Amino acid sequence: ALAGPTLAQNLPTLNWRLVSSFPKSLDTLFGTPEVFASSLRKATDGKFNVKIFAAGEVVPALQVLDAVQNGTVECGHTASYYYLGKNSAFIFDTAAPFGMTARQQTAWMLHGNGMKLMRELYASYNIVNFLGGQTGTQMGGWFRKEIKSPEDLKGLKFRVAGFVGQALAKLGVIPQQLPAGEIYSALEKGTIDAAEFVGPYDDEKLGLAKVAKNYYYPAFWEGAAGLSFLVNKKQWDALPPSYQAAWEAACFEAHVDMCAKYDALNPPALQRLVQNGAVLRKFNTSVMDACFKASQETYAEESAKNPQFKKIFEDYRAFRNMEAQWFGLAEQAFAQYSFSKKL
Amino acid sequence: ALAGPTLAQNLPTLNWRLVSSFPKSLDTLFGTPEVFASSLRKATDGKFNVKIFAAGEVVPALQVLDAVQNGTVECGHTASYYYLGKNSAFIFDTAAPFGMTARQQTAWMLHGNGMKLMRELYASYNIVNFLGGQTGTQMGGWFRKEIKSPEDLKGLKFRVAGFVGQALAKLGVIPQQLPAGEIYSALEKGTIDAAEFVGPYDDEKLGLAKVAKNYYYPAFWEGAAGLSFLVNKKQWDALPPSYQAAWEAACFEAHVDMCAKYDALNPPALQRLVQNGAVLRKFNTSVMDACFKASQETYAEESAKNPQFKKIFEDYRAFRNMEAQWFGLAEQAFAQYSFSKKL
Repeated sequence: ALAGPTLAQNLPTLNWRLVSSFPKSLDTLFGTPEVFASSLRKATDGKFNVKIFAAGEVVPALQVLDAVQNGTVECGHTASYYYLGKNSAFIFDTAAPFGMTARQQTAWMLHGNGMKLMRELYASYNIVNFLGGQTGTQMGGWFRKEIKSPEDLKGLKFRVAGFVGQALAKLGVIPQQLPAGEIYSALEKGTIDAAEFVGPYDDEKLGLAKVAKNYYYPAFWEGAAGLSFLVNKKQWDALPPSYQAAWEAACFEAHVDMCAKYDALNPPALQRLVQNGAVLRKFNTSVMDACFKASQETYAEESAKNPQFKKIFEDYRAFRNMEAQWFGLAEQAFAQYSFSKKL
Repeated sequence: ALAGPTLAQNLPTLNWRLVSSFPKSLDTLFGTPEVFASSLRKATDGKFNVKIFAAGEVVPALQVLDAVQNGTVECGHTASYYYLGKNSAFIFDTAAPFGMTARQQTAWMLHGNGMKLMRELYASYNIVNFLGGQTGTQMGGWFRKEIKSPEDLKGLKFRVAGFVGQALAKLGVIPQQLPAGEIYSALEKGTIDAAEFVGPYDDEKLGLAKVAKNYYYPAFWEGAAGLSFLVNKKQWDALPPSYQAAWEAACFEAHVDMCAKYDALNPPALQRLVQNGAVLRKFNTSVMDACFKASQETYAEESAKNPQFKKIFEDYRAFRNMEAQWFGLAEQAFAQYSFSKKL
């Protein structure tokens, strides 16, 4: 049923700037706002344009939240857990040790209290947040020596991001912060003993198999890692409702696309890494048990310190425990049997 | 950067009809086009309206493809495998025995050849297809008696949909077709011995625990089940590009939302089912092995009969085998350890 053309519209032409926390070389992470911006531009008939800037072009990688909060730019794409120094509760928007998987986290955000709770947190920074992609479970990283027991973690200089560092420190790990570009030489020189990054596709670019061939899994601190789009609240509130709707739908498109891209690119990258010398190793139960216990202690400590952390963690935990029970049945029984078979 | 209002638009007001294969009572499945239509309407400033009709209101549940192909309606929401009688290759748009999980299938569609191949298939029906949601791994169904070995499948009258019926028939199962509303009384009377439907949340509505308490998992024939939006190609081609873009983004929104909804609703439903007498049972390895072998034979037979099936299956299989290898590492190691722990 095609009706006649409507009257003049008053929809504005907008040119916004989006700052990314990632370099162009990481086409998975950097590519996600590109998918988003393309969807938004097309759906608004070319009127709402978002130009994307890589880390460092407008603001440094880890100042995306600040730039959006201050109105330096209208919007950004980042991982909320980079800002745990501002408020440790930000980790639940990205990843938490032994936390939710990609699907569980999206379910918590959309049909649990996740989005509501994270928006409350972001509101005090004048920011509205949106889903912005998922990496899936990451790899545990590259280790020069084997980790056979919790003892082997003592004194280990491990390049590892964020909250899990507090837990690992209890086991004697010395967490290190290093930009991606410096990991290779630090491992080669022995300045650090191990480094985690993302997963096979992104890790391959760093070439670490040559200097630390033991490629451990899983990253129990990143059973999933969620990315986020951030928008300055004043800018968001001023948008026409149709642009807000197009924005939201474009975020969903980018959210699906990023995880699908990782899931398609990681398997062949893994094969290439193994061909080039990476030795796949699984953290054994003694190591996992020690890390689980240390993580539990860290959750309790942080809950005692930060009421917002406590509030969000209680909700996150309850949802996650219920999810774990269900995913442990049909989904796990299928995966366990099926993944071991060649179709 | 807010520019002035633009000139008159020529975007039309559209009122389309969407036919669903599902009844309103299944709010998960029926609700997905509602999420889609709301997103599309808002993003087009109220101009592109899609009115949703439940199964039977305009056409019967399993004639959605025909109605869209013939132009009876502009669009539909359905599961492609309902149309395997037209072409068995349609199953790969929904679910295949021991096939891909939800994330793997979305990856194949968007960053493998899946969408391209399915669009080629749908093109001969004058239809353009889009992602339309995911259920995740389904439950294996409700059984009056325990299934302890492949022997117990002989003569079993099992209400089970589609392609897997051909495989199960090799093991002596007598596949039954029954509308959802007739399952309860058929199980009660013993006309059938077992019935599969979806998962805890949808199954709960049928009340089957009272008449067949053994609730088996997993549905190895539905490691994931993808739903699809179908659009008449002539109607699609006539849409303004901005409406096409808003349509695509709205499909992504609905795609994410449906799986998140299932993942949020299934866990508490499972708990209620168990409280009300359902006994959870896992298909053992001897049963799974027999079904896997029978499925492999069915794939080979169908490939020999249908070149389109063969072409899509070969691509599906290669992608799935690569995915299984990768998901068997980090994702599985995390799930296996983590799901068994209370956070």
